[in-house]
Amino acid sequence: MTWMRKKLLCPLRMLLTLRPTASVCRPRFRVRTMATAAAAPPASDYAALCERLREVNALNGVSGLLGWDEQTMMPDGAADLRAKQQAALAGVVYEKETAPELGQLLARLQAAALSDPWQAANVRDAARNYKRKTALSKDLAQREARLSSEGYQAWAKARKSSDFAAFAPVLRQWVDLTKEKMAAIDASKAPYDVALDAFERGMTSNRLDEIFKVVRDGLVPLLADVRTRGTPPDDSWLKGDFDVDKQAALCKEIAVEMGFNLTHGRLDVSIHPFTGGAGPTDVRMTTRFKANDLMEGLTGAIHETGHALYEQARPAGENDGMPVSEALSMGVHESQSLLWERCVALSRPFAAYLLPKLQAAFPDAPGLQGKTADDLYRAMNAVSLRSLIRVEADELNYPLHIILRYELESSLLRSDISVEDLPRLWNARMQEYLGVTPDNDAQGVLQDVHWSAGAIGYFPTYSLGAMMAVQLFDAAKKAMPNLEDDIAAGRFAPLREWLRVAIHSKGSLHPTLDELLISATGEPLRPEVFLAFLKRKYGEIYKL
Amino acid sequence: MTWMRKKLLCPLRMLLTLRPTASVCRPRFRVRTMATAAAAPPASDYAALCERLREVNALNGVSGLLGWDEQTMMPDGAADLRAKQQAALAGVVYEKETAPELGQLLARLQAAALSDPWQAANVRDAARNYKRKTALSKDLAQREARLSSEGYQAWAKARKSSDFAAFAPVLRQWVDLTKEKMAAIDASKAPYDVALDAFERGMTSNRLDEIFKVVRDGLVPLLADVRTRGTPPDDSWLKGDFDVDKQAALCKEIAVEMGFNLTHGRLDVSIHPFTGGAGPTDVRMTTRFKANDLMEGLTGAIHETGHALYEQARPAGENDGMPVSEALSMGVHESQSLLWERCVALSRPFAAYLLPKLQAAFPDAPGLQGKTADDLYRAMNAVSLRSLIRVEADELNYPLHIILRYELESSLLRSDISVEDLPRLWNARMQEYLGVTPDNDAQGVLQDVHWSAGAIGYFPTYSLGAMMAVQLFDAAKKAMPNLEDDIAAGRFAPLREWLRVAIHSKGSLHPTLDELLISATGEPLRPEVFLAFLKRKYGEIYKL
Repeated sequence: MTWMRKKLLCPLRMLLTLRPTASVCRPRFRVRTMATAAAAPPASDYAALCERLREVNALNGVSGLLGWDEQTMMPDGAADLRAKQQAALAGVVYEKETAPELGQLLARLQAAALSDPWQAANVRDAARNYKRKTALSKDLAQREARLSSEGYQAWAKARKSSDFAAFAPVLRQWVDLTKEKMAAIDASKAPYDVALDAFERGMTSNRLDEIFKVVRDGLVPLLADVRTRGTPPDDSWLKGDFDVDKQAALCKEIAVEMGFNLTHGRLDVSIHPFTGGAGPTDVRMTTRFKANDLMEGLTGAIHETGHALYEQARPAGENDGMPVSEALSMGVHESQSLLWERCVALSRPFAAYLLPKLQAAFPDAPGLQGKTADDLYRAMNAVSLRSLIRVEADELNYPLHIILRYELESSLLRSDISVEDLPRLWNARMQEYLGVTPDNDAQGVLQDVHWSAGAIGYFPTYSLGAMMAVQLFDAAKKAMPNLEDDIAAGRFAPLREWLRVAIHSKGSLHPTLDELLISATGEPLRPEVFLAFLKRKYGEIYKL
Repeated sequence: MTWMRKKLLCPLRMLLTLRPTASVCRPRFRVRTMATAAAAPPASDYAALCERLREVNALNGVSGLLGWDEQTMMPDGAADLRAKQQAALAGVVYEKETAPELGQLLARLQAAALSDPWQAANVRDAARNYKRKTALSKDLAQREARLSSEGYQAWAKARKSSDFAAFAPVLRQWVDLTKEKMAAIDASKAPYDVALDAFERGMTSNRLDEIFKVVRDGLVPLLADVRTRGTPPDDSWLKGDFDVDKQAALCKEIAVEMGFNLTHGRLDVSIHPFTGGAGPTDVRMTTRFKANDLMEGLTGAIHETGHALYEQARPAGENDGMPVSEALSMGVHESQSLLWERCVALSRPFAAYLLPKLQAAFPDAPGLQGKTADDLYRAMNAVSLRSLIRVEADELNYPLHIILRYELESSLLRSDISVEDLPRLWNARMQEYLGVTPDNDAQGVLQDVHWSAGAIGYFPTYSLGAMMAVQLFDAAKKAMPNLEDDIAAGRFAPLREWLRVAIHSKGSLHPTLDELLISATGEPLRPEVFLAFLKRKYGEIYKL
């Protein structure tokens, strides 16, 4: 009570015009209502479950807001304070997510086998989360936390000096710890499959092996063709000096035309673009702009808008704040950002929509004038002939970066290779798949932060998303014969609405990416569709 | 785990360049460290107390940040979501603040009577808070929460239609509930004294009666003199059309010259200026500007900077996040904002510093050119001759608005008057003290939100702060003979440093405003000092 007063020093002054539904001062009076309401006997087990899960959801939303603030608004000197605040909040969420009473509720509800599919999905996902959270011993959890912190430091230092040997001991510990952890969560499955499941529910190594084999076998020769006998488009005119404020205004205009709802979100600038925030009615999206690169800011903003449209259209109503309202997986989320970034923004119809906007925004840019939509389409799709860094990779190179990482990390967890083998295997496969060899490990095996944080099993979701995007867009085109005309005219509502019905509004109702894709398109993920798309597109652009 | 991943959709992309001390992704790995650390046996009761209090402090800091965000950044459509999130957080804080284990710890530590004065102050304040929080029955707490919500709605509606009868039933309930609540907290004291103590620790009605009698008896005739035979300064040239962006830039410049640290804070714009944020290293200050009124934005910004300087210089080190690091009271906080706003910014030396800045910022404003610092000083201190609204009142009228409210609310709690008497008494005293009678209750007894929220005992802190400010500034002038020259030259560091040592760095070490003032100036609050200051200043300006 006193603290809010002390911190918000003129709270009563503020109260005077606050919206009736939300008040800064209200919470201190609500404190006791909440606490007493929680003690009241639940109307039913399911209602009690909803109350617990919604509380956790609300606290997680707060954490999301803090994360956004840290990247966009927080003064530099507040980093230590913020770390303490996030840790305190995380501690509270952990207590609530692992409360024995929650486990008992879930056990009763699982036994009751609810018939409503949405309710059943909530119980399913809550039980899954409870199991993953409570499976770890205190000792294992403490070691994991320690290694996370040490791992990041060790990786940052090793990358700086391009010294893989300095990072190898940490990575060895991560491999061992991950095996131990995954066995604790589900000893009946291969450790890598349990690790994958954290990022892409229901995905297995067997399925990924099949999928990635198709992609790799088709893509390596295609990329080699592009490199050796392709005719590169001229994209030099997309480099130059483009006022970043004008870029930002243009991107905001496009995001809003795509359907980003500014009543339920914000658009800011941060060093690394991301989409986050406090919940579906408070989606915070960020972008960044480079004066010398028109496409980076533009495709970045469209990518994040794809994420944001998913977030803003997740299930509400009785499932608001419940697990089933969450996005299904990292892969599905990436499918939404990549569908807009690649299938839409890098398409010919979009180039027709975009070109006049670019020319109007930058009337003084000599390279832009006199160009055609086809020139723009080709320039936007120029392929790097020497792709060393995943985060800078284009549509055609990206999947091979992922497949390489997937092969190495899954082999590590199966003990087929050891940590010392990584630099050699990395460089060999870079040459084999992408036709380049890194000059050093900083540009090679040390380039990504993921393994330093123990995020093993994360990489595949990027490419699963890319493949799902193409398949969804194919289905959308079939469902809407005028889709390309609509895009060329800047009419994005039909596509957004199709995605809302097919994907966004489904939340986590379906248990896997494949099942969601079947419900949306009639088929599970088919890498052949993705591959055919790339062959057709780049065969034409590079005149193969 | 999954939620953070889902919400911050590209967390690993962000990790790449995060500061080593704070990382968006770190918290999910810290979850378990925190939870397990909390279960470890405490090194001592005091250490265990620190751990609990710091956790609460961290969560309260989060709530402060959410409050700032709500006023500055949050999209309109997120109000319901934010209310849920603040309520969930408040519920967690309440659980932790009223935990029986905390009570047991505090009982042992109070019995142990720690010899270190800072540690003893932490135990004292934590025990005080625990007592106030746990004193209420569930039933009383529920009724209070309900009335808070209903009260605000009823007040807003009643004010709109200027219908006191529509608000009276709620206010009657608040009076009864407050008596009941204060009896539950401390039945040995008069209810109004217990209510006062929540806002101004240790303050009593007896002491306020003495203080306010001196002020009222001196100020009513002074104000009557100003109104009837004063020569008003010309302040018309401070009205006009002043670009708000230029005003904002000027205010930021002044705030920074006063010592506001942008590494540990931000300055933004909000509808109602306030100072809040997440803690001493993350102080968020806001201002607002009106094109037609140069002084409102300027004095508002300087006022908030006074609050912010206090916040940024509260005790750190081993008392970081502990109760003793908090500001002592509402009155002391207001003394810091008002010292800068009134004793500094409305002074002659400051006018000499400010005038060239104003002339440089607004070279085209005809009224500003050719003016002297003395013109500016007089214009800034023009007194309203018809002051009806407290929040718009100037230095000279303000205390009488407060004294009127104090007399009425304390009489209500003593049952000397009843709620129905309020409009009549309000209007009569407005005429007696301020020489004006409101046209209607919206402009009179219904103008303030405080009572609708049950904030009885809050009003006096405004004027206690104003008096303390004058007394502190007097002491500072004695300690620093060059202070006025420093101010005229824009050298604010000596005053800021004097305040840091005397006030800011003391936190809540001293148990009352009076004791802090004794430690800073050798004397408790003396209303005579305040009155003499006003007589001298306005006697000269109005040529009495």
